[in-house]
Amino acid sequence: MAPAGLLEHAVASTGIVGSSQMSFQGLARLGARKHLNLISLQKWDQQLGGLKISLHAAAAATAPGRKNLTLGALAATAPAPELDASTQDNLKRAVARKAVELVKSGMIVGLGTGSTASMAIEELGKLISQNKVKDVVGVATSYQSRVLARQFGVKTVDLNDVNHIDVAFDGADEVDASMNLIKGGGAAHTMEKVVDSIAKQCVILIDQTKVVPELGLTFPVPVEVLQFALSPVLRALVGLGGVPEIRNALRKDGPVITDLGNMVVDVRFPEGIKNPAELENKINMIPGVIENGLFINIAHKVLVATKDGDETAIVELADFVASLKSAKEVST
Amino acid sequence: MAPAGLLEHAVASTGIVGSSQMSFQGLARLGARKHLNLISLQKWDQQLGGLKISLHAAAAATAPGRKNLTLGALAATAPAPELDASTQDNLKRAVARKAVELVKSGMIVGLGTGSTASMAIEELGKLISQNKVKDVVGVATSYQSRVLARQFGVKTVDLNDVNHIDVAFDGADEVDASMNLIKGGGAAHTMEKVVDSIAKQCVILIDQTKVVPELGLTFPVPVEVLQFALSPVLRALVGLGGVPEIRNALRKDGPVITDLGNMVVDVRFPEGIKNPAELENKINMIPGVIENGLFINIAHKVLVATKDGDETAIVELADFVASLKSAKEVST
Repeated sequence: MAPAGLLEHAVASTGIVGSSQMSFQGLARLGARKHLNLISLQKWDQQLGGLKISLHAAAAATAPGRKNLTLGALAATAPAPELDASTQDNLKRAVARKAVELVKSGMIVGLGTGSTASMAIEELGKLISQNKVKDVVGVATSYQSRVLARQFGVKTVDLNDVNHIDVAFDGADEVDASMNLIKGGGAAHTMEKVVDSIAKQCVILIDQTKVVPELGLTFPVPVEVLQFALSPVLRALVGLGGVPEIRNALRKDGPVITDLGNMVVDVRFPEGIKNPAELENKINMIPGVIENGLFINIAHKVLVATKDGDETAIVELADFVASLKSAKEVST
Repeated sequence: MAPAGLLEHAVASTGIVGSSQMSFQGLARLGARKHLNLISLQKWDQQLGGLKISLHAAAAATAPGRKNLTLGALAATAPAPELDASTQDNLKRAVARKAVELVKSGMIVGLGTGSTASMAIEELGKLISQNKVKDVVGVATSYQSRVLARQFGVKTVDLNDVNHIDVAFDGADEVDASMNLIKGGGAAHTMEKVVDSIAKQCVILIDQTKVVPELGLTFPVPVEVLQFALSPVLRALVGLGGVPEIRNALRKDGPVITDLGNMVVDVRFPEGIKNPAELENKINMIPGVIENGLFINIAHKVLVATKDGDETAIVELADFVASLKSAKEVST
């Protein structure tokens, strides 16, 4: 199949028609001209605008079993234990179970996206089926969370049908000590940011591996971008000191397409992010950017699932950070 | 036909599927429940979030023959003559013809959207057909400008196929003395902002009725919004002191849908806009907002077509404003 055909298929599978499709045809023509291997769209942005963008072979956003290299920097003498997948799942389950205790009857609940938020949806469904809470409805932030909610017996309504969100549960990819977040590993950060930002209480559920001393040292900032504007947005992101990479899909040819029909650019900031609020603003002001994964002053509470030996505990972020610092002081 | 059916038709006609459609179903259900006249979607936002949004019967964005009430405030003793449609068309033609003289062979030209920009596309096509410029390609900012370009013999390429824009021509709905603009009466402001913002030279073409002492006194700020997020975005816009109104379509049922598949909210600021740069930033930072029609520090040159008696002239904005002020001083 010709490369152009591959890309057209990729576009067709998004169900989006119109200008997005037209701008994609240019991409397809470019591919056809340059005989790019379009399975790896990364090569395309290497050639964009004459910029030599150094690409990282492994995208942190999709790498399984990512180790948290940066927590070590915060607590150099008390490194976080590396957690196997099963242990991490147990921690996620524990924090999800604890979190849904915040739900009272009659509440409108924001339903985040991702592995931990999915467990919160499941645990909320249990509370409802056991009649421990009544008249609870959920507002989903993605197809995934909507489908899970139905599966686990949580009624869903559209965001436009409600006037507020009482509590929103969501995961995060990185969390700093000030409750600033990087989200978007699941490409749902635009809808998540809408829901999380209006929730009376936005509760972030993480295991201890997600806590970092500074955002961006390990995880890139996901940016949702209009397909029409991809090329100039990539250049503008480089202008902000970032190293952008178009996120490729694994189960379809070409790039990841979000539930909203756009593309995702993961932007590394190799020196870390000294001023996350300023960067959030600067990225969002680039024409063509829909939303980025920096969540600043949105979380009201961060619950951290920790494991120390055989002991599992759910603690608030401030207590977790304090415990790391005191552990460091003791050993110094 | 049931109201819900009307809205589903409106959604189907956009060709967008997925979460946008799902969130719209809520709108349809709301309509079905409340027996709203869904031809007038304005009633819907009156009821949103318990907010009593006062709606203006006539939307300035669509009112034909809009008079410029505010230019009079700038030059109270030298009021701008009211122009009939034919005179205004002549002025637009004159400024379009003058503007395309800036195009040199080999340039990549940004093609704005709207009546004046359309004339610039036509005039550019004439230069090309007369061989006065060669190897010129255009980058369209809408379906409309792309179709016009083809019609008038201007080759178009996708924005993602070029590394820069040499010169962009665009119209505006309001222009202040600092070359700040309100755009988006044609609902193309998101793509226009991408193209205009990266152009080496962004040239705005207007007739004298578009010059105002302060943005926003007459024209609302168009905001492109994700359908999923419409309700919270409307509330946030009210929080910024705005009076938002969902823009209704005239040639289809329900709201205007942009070329990018989103909705447009026209936001009045009845007291005017004292700090346009700050407002542009605050609106864009609302999760769910894609782009707004305040163009700050984007225009490099504004060409104003003026008429004084039988005399038509094309002048730069600074000269036009100076002439207004001196006329005022003379008569004082």
